[in-house]
Amino acid sequence: MRRTWIDLNSDMGESFGNFVLGRPEEVMKRISHANIACGFHAGDPTWMRRTVEWAKQYGVTIGAHPGFPDLTGFGRRLMNITLQEATNYVVYQAGALKAFCEMHGLKLQAGKPHGAFYSWSILSEDNARAVLEGFQAIDPDLTLYLPALPHFPLIATAEKMGFRVIKEFYPGLSYDDKGAITVKRTYGTESVEEIVELVLRFALDGKTTSTTGTVIDVEGDSVCVHGDVVNAPEVLDGLHAALQREGIEVRSAIYAGHDAQLPLRRRASA
Amino acid sequence: MRRTWIDLNSDMGESFGNFVLGRPEEVMKRISHANIACGFHAGDPTWMRRTVEWAKQYGVTIGAHPGFPDLTGFGRRLMNITLQEATNYVVYQAGALKAFCEMHGLKLQAGKPHGAFYSWSILSEDNARAVLEGFQAIDPDLTLYLPALPHFPLIATAEKMGFRVIKEFYPGLSYDDKGAITVKRTYGTESVEEIVELVLRFALDGKTTSTTGTVIDVEGDSVCVHGDVVNAPEVLDGLHAALQREGIEVRSAIYAGHDAQLPLRRRASA
Amino acid sequence: MRRTWIDLNSDMGESFGNFVLGRPEEVMKRISHANIACGFHAGDPTWMRRTVEWAKQYGVTIGAHPGFPDLTGFGRRLMNITLQEATNYVVYQAGALKAFCEMHGLKLQAGKPHGAFYSWSILSEDNARAVLEGFQAIDPDLTLYLPALPHFPLIATAEKMGFRVIKEFYPGLSYDDKGAITVKRTYGTESVEEIVELVLRFALDGKTTSTTGTVIDVEGDSVCVHGDVVNAPEVLDGLHAALQREGIEVRSAIYAGHDAQLPLRRRASA
Amino acid sequence: MRRTWIDLNSDMGESFGNFVLGRPEEVMKRISHANIACGFHAGDPTWMRRTVEWAKQYGVTIGAHPGFPDLTGFGRRLMNITLQEATNYVVYQAGALKAFCEMHGLKLQAGKPHGAFYSWSILSEDNARAVLEGFQAIDPDLTLYLPALPHFPLIATAEKMGFRVIKEFYPGLSYDDKGAITVKRTYGTESVEEIVELVLRFALDGKTTSTTGTVIDVEGDSVCVHGDVVNAPEVLDGLHAALQREGIEVRSAIYAGHDAQLPLRRRASA
Repeated sequence: MRRTWIDLNSDMGESFGNFVLGRPEEVMKRISHANIACGFHAGDPTWMRRTVEWAKQYGVTIGAHPGFPDLTGFGRRLMNITLQEATNYVVYQAGALKAFCEMHGLKLQAGKPHGAFYSWSILSEDNARAVLEGFQAIDPDLTLYLPALPHFPLIATAEKMGFRVIKEFYPGLSYDDKGAITVKRTYGTESVEEIVELVLRFALDGKTTSTTGTVIDVEGDSVCVHGDVVNAPEVLDGLHAALQREGIEVRSAIYAGHDAQLPLRRRASA
Repeated sequence: MRRTWIDLNSDMGESFGNFVLGRPEEVMKRISHANIACGFHAGDPTWMRRTVEWAKQYGVTIGAHPGFPDLTGFGRRLMNITLQEATNYVVYQAGALKAFCEMHGLKLQAGKPHGAFYSWSILSEDNARAVLEGFQAIDPDLTLYLPALPHFPLIATAEKMGFRVIKEFYPGLSYDDKGAITVKRTYGTESVEEIVELVLRFALDGKTTSTTGTVIDVEGDSVCVHGDVVNAPEVLDGLHAALQREGIEVRSAIYAGHDAQLPLRRRASA
Repeated sequence: MRRTWIDLNSDMGESFGNFVLGRPEEVMKRISHANIACGFHAGDPTWMRRTVEWAKQYGVTIGAHPGFPDLTGFGRRLMNITLQEATNYVVYQAGALKAFCEMHGLKLQAGKPHGAFYSWSILSEDNARAVLEGFQAIDPDLTLYLPALPHFPLIATAEKMGFRVIKEFYPGLSYDDKGAITVKRTYGTESVEEIVELVLRFALDGKTTSTTGTVIDVEGDSVCVHGDVVNAPEVLDGLHAALQREGIEVRSAIYAGHDAQLPLRRRASA
Repeated sequence: MRRTWIDLNSDMGESFGNFVLGRPEEVMKRISHANIACGFHAGDPTWMRRTVEWAKQYGVTIGAHPGFPDLTGFGRRLMNITLQEATNYVVYQAGALKAFCEMHGLKLQAGKPHGAFYSWSILSEDNARAVLEGFQAIDPDLTLYLPALPHFPLIATAEKMGFRVIKEFYPGLSYDDKGAITVKRTYGTESVEEIVELVLRFALDGKTTSTTGTVIDVEGDSVCVHGDVVNAPEVLDGLHAALQREGIEVRSAIYAGHDAQLPLRRRASA
């Protein structure tokens, strides 16, 4: 059956104090779901609040994006934490973000571990469970946004624990033949044409091409677009135009299947 | 009318990683209310969780104790933050602690700014309001624990905003003739006899003696006992024994006047 | 006597981890002296090293730019630290930077407290002395770069302690009638024409216009140019062109009067 | 040939702000060499200075003890940093400590990576070299204090690079049959008798017993004594008494073989 909608999510709230990462408000206008950093690897209370306010203003659903306590490394360096620390780091960070959501009458809807914390969470089922128990303590009804990687126990464990999982496609990363994400494709700016082509192919056919040239299947209802590249708003404009031509609506996956409460996702141009 | 109960509160959860401050579980067994640090001036996610678990185990009510983002200075150095930062720092920290409470089926009941953040909050009504709006965003039904200082706008502003305020007596600090707290009396260890005498006088007569020798009135339902001095458990044992002799029960002020739901505070020896 | 040279300095090394502030290498190519952040309010070991390497590559003299331990606030929030903490914060930060200089065969030549740490250092002679003793412990032959503010004890104390002081003009800030710097003029981008006009007037006549329109005298051999505005390289190109037309050479004030060892400052176009 | 002296070293300067670890001055009086934390995993500028002052007062030689930037984890959690970050972290931390040494007319004599940073440095020769290049940039004449572990490339690489290496015995850890340190033996307090027996056996015979009961050889001129256990001063008193009975002098290995400049190590009781 032909896909009629797709979700565009980005990692947001990654500025810190005086340091502004990318053009965050311009990105927020153009996505349907935001994974918001919570002050450990990026973000601070004031940026979290501002980011939540933008999400509210532009009708974007909100997920917590907890990371390792490693601001210097932007949470991208694997750290050998304990299982209990993993749970507690999720509870602390997602709890703080939830408070900013509630302050603005919003619901924290989702969660997704960031960077090396995500890498840590797929190392074993115990690790997966430790991270997931943190999200469970915040709200067992949270949706998890997770890369569609079939070879790791994270998604299966999440579903076993009763979480709804939204699988993501990453046009800015590389896939190997088994569907594993390997290396970052681009830095600085991304090619609008390339990203549009990759996303359309995923949206229309559920396919992508691996680093060895093999065509592989990729499942999922959401596309994770880099929000920190300089031309992220232009990439997103390209995606909106192309998806509109194909009759595919951009909307948060959070509401998919719950049509009664489904806010139409305003397009960036609206 | 003779006082039949009193609340003993301490600042708790002030350990950090490998650094253990005082003998925290021994203190928790002997108090009725805990102000728990939230990771900025002290505390980390694992200590917050452990401290909440001890509070649950020993029947102690929980308040959030947010501070300045200054671990090196233990939140005791005044920082010139903005009004919005003040609100956001409360929301972030109290939100994180609330998540640990809810994880264990507990309610975050109260709040109190820590150290120099408290000092900042009494500098003006605007400052007071900024801090209080943070607590309000977390839960307008929070009780505030605040030093009984009549000359600053914090308590009046809190009451105007609809908060219930529990006023505190500080036997470990010095009072001037106007009831203002001036300097720290002791470091390291405290004299059990001296603290017991001061608390009894406060509990029985509502009086204390200022640094100039004048007898002054001190209002309040709670006594804030230093939890980080080495002999804090012994000080608390002394207080329990003396208060028991006077027929004054130790219980959290959170529940006072709500007798139906009032859990009897277990004594430390029980 | 007509001025034949002037020093252009910027605050550098203010990036942190994944957060890049401005276009640092482009700025470094166009200045003669760099005040390098040392990891407290901005900067980290890897950015410090990279910044020192750029300074070496482009023939720029190096000063330490220590700040408050407040990364969230970028060192711009006043903190009530002790005198000994002030000294120790300078020793720690300048010592770390000195090690990166020596690693590359360079000499740490200068110092200047950053932001609110500078504001703290002008509050009293004791504060001034505490900061200066830190620099003295690093190297009593350091040159100090300081805003030419006549009403505060910092410059006088520095000279009394035997430091050479280079006074600075700030075209990006506002002066009141007494020569005190009051508020930041611009954010984001600066007007090349305006900055060029202000610097030429300072360089040729030693004058500027206060916020009330009064013409005031400003002493100094160095101009502090904002390195973090987006168009800082263009501002600096404008300054180089205008100064060249006036026959004023851009060179580090560190070497002025020591002609034998004076490296000609390469112009950005060279 | 019978050993006539031995070096007792401890990890020092591990307090942070308001958090005091162990009884540091009492330990400093009783050791001959101190590995001083530099503010990343523990320590802050004020504790570093105080610790250097104690080392001066009690005639203890000083080494830098850099760690991972992980205060919450006390530098004990492996982090996947890059080679260049490793070098830069050593330069930054050791440079800061060197400045405090020079402030007090002392020489930074040695270096040793802390905790998980040490574990990282033995993972490969590249890692070893990255850490060692940091120490080399500080001073190629530094002595390295390193556990006597024969199976890792760190010691060999250090010697190849021209460093003098002092090998250490760890009475508070466990050795396997191949001489590798495996797990921590004790927490909280240590048995004076057990530590004394282990050290005497090492000092007199160069032997210890592995976890399987096998007698193995351990090389080295220094014993690393836990400085953070509560009874560290008592353990050290026991060691001094036992070594004195055996006619073995406690002195820093830094000076061994350089008798002309050798300060007699004052015994703790002196």
